[in-house]
Amino acid sequence: MRLAFLGLIMMSACTLAPGLRGDEGMWLFNDLPVKHLSERYGFEPTPEWAEHLMKSSVRFNVGGSASFVSSNGLVLTNHHVASDTLQKLSSEENNYLKDGFLAKSQADELKAPDLELNQLVAIQDVTERVNAAVSDDMTTEQAVAARRAVISEIEKEYLDATGFRSDVVTLYGGARYHLYQYKKYTDVRLVWAPESAIAFFGGDADNFEYPRFCLDACLFRVYENDKPAQIEHFLKWAEEGAKGGELVFVSGNPGRTSRIFTVAALQFQRDVRMPFILNLLRRREIALQQFGLRGTEQARRAQDDLFGIQNSRKAYLGMLGGLQDPAVMSAKAESEKALREQIALDPNLSKYSDAFGKIEETQRMRAELLSQTVNFNSQLVGIAQRLVQMAAEDQKPSTERLAEYADAGRESLLQQLFSSAPIYADLEQFLLADALSHIVELRGGNDPWVAKVLMGKSPIDRAAELIAGTKLIDVETRKSVSEGGQAAIDSSEDTMIQFALLIDEEVRRVRKANEEVAEIEKQSYAKITEANFATLGTSVYPDATFTLRLSFGPVMGYEQEGEWVEPFTHIGGTYEREASRGGQKDFVLPDSWKEAKDRMNLEIPFNFVCTADIIGGNSGSPVVNTDGELVGLIFDGNIQSLTADYLYTDRQTRAVSVNSSAILEALRVVYDAQHIVNELGK
Amino acid sequence: MRLAFLGLIMMSACTLAPGLRGDEGMWLFNDLPVKHLSERYGFEPTPEWAEHLMKSSVRFNVGGSASFVSSNGLVLTNHHVASDTLQKLSSEENNYLKDGFLAKSQADELKAPDLELNQLVAIQDVTERVNAAVSDDMTTEQAVAARRAVISEIEKEYLDATGFRSDVVTLYGGARYHLYQYKKYTDVRLVWAPESAIAFFGGDADNFEYPRFCLDACLFRVYENDKPAQIEHFLKWAEEGAKGGELVFVSGNPGRTSRIFTVAALQFQRDVRMPFILNLLRRREIALQQFGLRGTEQARRAQDDLFGIQNSRKAYLGMLGGLQDPAVMSAKAESEKALREQIALDPNLSKYSDAFGKIEETQRMRAELLSQTVNFNSQLVGIAQRLVQMAAEDQKPSTERLAEYADAGRESLLQQLFSSAPIYADLEQFLLADALSHIVELRGGNDPWVAKVLMGKSPIDRAAELIAGTKLIDVETRKSVSEGGQAAIDSSEDTMIQFALLIDEEVRRVRKANEEVAEIEKQSYAKITEANFATLGTSVYPDATFTLRLSFGPVMGYEQEGEWVEPFTHIGGTYEREASRGGQKDFVLPDSWKEAKDRMNLEIPFNFVCTADIIGGNSGSPVVNTDGELVGLIFDGNIQSLTADYLYTDRQTRAVSVNSSAILEALRVVYDAQHIVNELGK
Repeated sequence: MRLAFLGLIMMSACTLAPGLRGDEGMWLFNDLPVKHLSERYGFEPTPEWAEHLMKSSVRFNVGGSASFVSSNGLVLTNHHVASDTLQKLSSEENNYLKDGFLAKSQADELKAPDLELNQLVAIQDVTERVNAAVSDDMTTEQAVAARRAVISEIEKEYLDATGFRSDVVTLYGGARYHLYQYKKYTDVRLVWAPESAIAFFGGDADNFEYPRFCLDACLFRVYENDKPAQIEHFLKWAEEGAKGGELVFVSGNPGRTSRIFTVAALQFQRDVRMPFILNLLRRREIALQQFGLRGTEQARRAQDDLFGIQNSRKAYLGMLGGLQDPAVMSAKAESEKALREQIALDPNLSKYSDAFGKIEETQRMRAELLSQTVNFNSQLVGIAQRLVQMAAEDQKPSTERLAEYADAGRESLLQQLFSSAPIYADLEQFLLADALSHIVELRGGNDPWVAKVLMGKSPIDRAAELIAGTKLIDVETRKSVSEGGQAAIDSSEDTMIQFALLIDEEVRRVRKANEEVAEIEKQSYAKITEANFATLGTSVYPDATFTLRLSFGPVMGYEQEGEWVEPFTHIGGTYEREASRGGQKDFVLPDSWKEAKDRMNLEIPFNFVCTADIIGGNSGSPVVNTDGELVGLIFDGNIQSLTADYLYTDRQTRAVSVNSSAILEALRVVYDAQHIVNELGK
Repeated sequence: MRLAFLGLIMMSACTLAPGLRGDEGMWLFNDLPVKHLSERYGFEPTPEWAEHLMKSSVRFNVGGSASFVSSNGLVLTNHHVASDTLQKLSSEENNYLKDGFLAKSQADELKAPDLELNQLVAIQDVTERVNAAVSDDMTTEQAVAARRAVISEIEKEYLDATGFRSDVVTLYGGARYHLYQYKKYTDVRLVWAPESAIAFFGGDADNFEYPRFCLDACLFRVYENDKPAQIEHFLKWAEEGAKGGELVFVSGNPGRTSRIFTVAALQFQRDVRMPFILNLLRRREIALQQFGLRGTEQARRAQDDLFGIQNSRKAYLGMLGGLQDPAVMSAKAESEKALREQIALDPNLSKYSDAFGKIEETQRMRAELLSQTVNFNSQLVGIAQRLVQMAAEDQKPSTERLAEYADAGRESLLQQLFSSAPIYADLEQFLLADALSHIVELRGGNDPWVAKVLMGKSPIDRAAELIAGTKLIDVETRKSVSEGGQAAIDSSEDTMIQFALLIDEEVRRVRKANEEVAEIEKQSYAKITEANFATLGTSVYPDATFTLRLSFGPVMGYEQEGEWVEPFTHIGGTYEREASRGGQKDFVLPDSWKEAKDRMNLEIPFNFVCTADIIGGNSGSPVVNTDGELVGLIFDGNIQSLTADYLYTDRQTRAVSVNSSAILEALRVVYDAQHIVNELGK
């Protein structure tokens, strides 16, 4: 699917039934389903096996997963996880996203402008401490503030004590809070990327489909003190790759699932939110296409965003398709009914009974808030907002600030804010005009806040004025405003700074309203989770939270429209598919592959599928065998996997990987990169 | 703009100010602005001049304009007006839309499957008779029925008396009713079409832009009794084409304008309807793109619909952009305020004072009705609905039927219903699934009518079932159901017939509600028009109604973003533009043009602009000089013209034409069609 993640939310009541659905589950590394694995597959992961895999796993904070694959800091991920960085490193002269890149030596490796990679080193439960800060007699507003304060306090305390990035993660929709500690890498350099024509062979047409033929792989290297970082835990490379039928594991960071959602919440997703999001995605997709029609350079500037939008659009369409199937929704309704009946019958559970009604209420609030969006789809507006809010927030104690301005996260915040990645004024202006127009549509042209935002101008003219009058494209300007604090903000004549000030009150109001809805839902889902624990037992996994999870299942084909789909494709099939599509866009191989054809071993398995339960955010996850060796690289799910957001079954749902042996073959034969091959797994 | 028309609705209060805005106006041929023309340009069209132009003009009922250009029935229109027919005549083997077509002799001309061309021969005012049938004490429901009945009666009467197609046209939003009589041509054959790469050079990117380089032209021939029709009124071809600065006239069928709209109606368009339509257009655009990604043949099947959708999307975006400009809306508000003040002051006008409030009310009704759409975006559903409704309606007297089933229109109805144009089951299924999904979104998944429509299945599965179980793709099946009347409908096991029966009640309910809203608006706009006539005089033109109008203005450039845009482009510029865009899609000339380059006169003016007031539906309109000679062929408006729906100014608004001399040059040099050149204008 190009599994860089999207932004939805997790564990259905039925998930919790003592019998899980086959290979279902995105398991916490501190609560692995050891018994389940042992019973189902006769394999019992040892603590050492798990720790090695956990510490070999890497999170890309732009929204993806990865793994260490050498002692010298090589990191393997997907081309499409790297694409944001490839785009940022590219220019009109050097289009690394399209044409690929290979560093002939370490000196040639290209430093990413703003990547942060995280290696998880420790997890601990802090639920009691978080919950102790929030009491039943608090208003929602007070509860939001108290929870934010205690979380920011814990994060700061652990950061100061250990130096590790410390994040408190909300699990089970609010029933548990765990502290995740990460070693952070911010000097990340590009080593190798293939051409997008082979990384994303088949393009939008084949995205989320199978069989596939994609070299969706990319290598970075992490540095410390300007030297390759020395890595203790990295994955051994299985030269032969995955084998049919074998049990494999996926260690990655699934972004969000919604399996705990109540029927009311799913109906809101089906009838309100997903249609809204899809309209917005289609709007942006067309806008980016239109911008790209202006010329080849404009097309290049828009390309990576366009990929991302198309990927999301296809993913949401699949999710919505599942929710619009009456059979899916009635299965959800039945399991919810069963739980609510159990709660009604058991006096010990009566304290949980109001949760469903509260969530039904919050859906109405969410529907109202949707049309009050304050999203301007502009990097420059975002930068100005950061600067304006940071100056104001920094005048408060860390625990009282908006979460992202707390002390613990400052380093990551500044890395983003001062990124040297190019910002294109023409593209910014085009997208901002469209976003302003969207806001007029949502609130109506007579709305007083709309009038305030437009200042008597059309969206197109207003966007032009805002872009023309800002210097925030320049990183030094951002730094100087940031250093100047509130005084620099107050005296700034930059149009974007003034715009961020103009909208700040409304932005904060909408955010606060959204946070209060989320708090009510946290309290309610916590109750539903406790009711589930009480009635169904505790060996369950929480919904995905863009934190490290373990999934598993065999390498196995599936039936689709009456036909059996084999688990493996082969390198030779790539050339056949190109020929059969007669030169259609996205089905044309790069010259490097055409030239290498005669030298390639066409029999090598290229992509494969397994039953592991994954979702957006898992992109780039290593696939390992029971020996903990790297056999594949997750890059997609099939079309049937798209309902996995709220429902997993292993009948047809499959995760799609690049086979580790195909990556080796391409590096050797197509890219003449023996020096990298020599380093892998060593 | 690719001006095949869209579907919106004409004359602002300020339009009616004694001083028109320069060259504003889409004038009725029975009420030409003779005095205005004489004063402004010193040219006074004679009745003969006007009659010749009127009778040389042709309407394409698929939504476009054209003209007779030879005594042997040659008809000149745009490639993009013809594209619907080109698509229908094409197959996997012969793609005339893409590759063009040339009949070497009359025997080679290709008969269009379902074209109907109309030549206007007479207009008369029937306002009194229509209004006499509707009295003030009728309910809205009664008024709708009475108006429909009298209109159908008039149409039948004149059809029977003259044999001409007879349409009662609602003008000035309901203040006037005119009877238009047409000679009808239904044997229409394709003579010549260029490749789409030159007809639509620059594609979606250059659509509605200027300068342009498009040979957006196509020739048909009308036949009677299997012989070329003998045409008395046809346009002489001006070999030299248009001249800079000269006054030219456009005779064509603008589809709809909304210049009479009240502020409330425009606000509804801005805040509700246009965003709704744009979301729908983007949805269909992406859907058609996605279908086309499945393979080259699928792309061919989707191509013409995709062109149409992209054209509409760009047009609506421009219209919405204008309405979102606070300056535009406050100008509208001021002129409405002035009119309402005059009404309030004059006791004779007090009977008109409730019109504004009523229109405000109907906007709320329209907003509700939008989400109750019953549009399935499927030709097969449409055919089944026609068959089901026709069987039921035919049991009533003609005057009581839904308008399209009245006797007067039966011939045109059956021509469409029994068209031999191909229908592609795979594309139908894909679009129907999406339309079903859209209906779920609009009404919500819990809606009882949605449940009835889906019958427990997902939109995708339901669409598959409906398409698999119908034989209506076969024209003979349609004929036999049609001949079998109600009994054939009742006993049919065809899934689509059963589906049309299932939805019929709701389809009729929604239609009735929409017709009642329209009736209230007709009565209200009639009042506003009368108030305008009373306060501002009567020399005004009504909003566009897809009937023949005359527009005018000089061939003249304009200023854009500080630069002067010359009125003419030249053939040589086409090659330069191709070179400058470096092979980007839609900027690659066809081989025929590349090969002909050395032989072409590169100095010949290719496209030109004039100030004439046009809109969608004007596509294919002849442009004539004061001698009534053909100097150009309308095919687009510039981006500034998109607000012409509700506001015209001649400062920047321009109509874009192919120059007549460029068509000649291409026919001679590129297409080796001297036999056609010899016939033109003779």
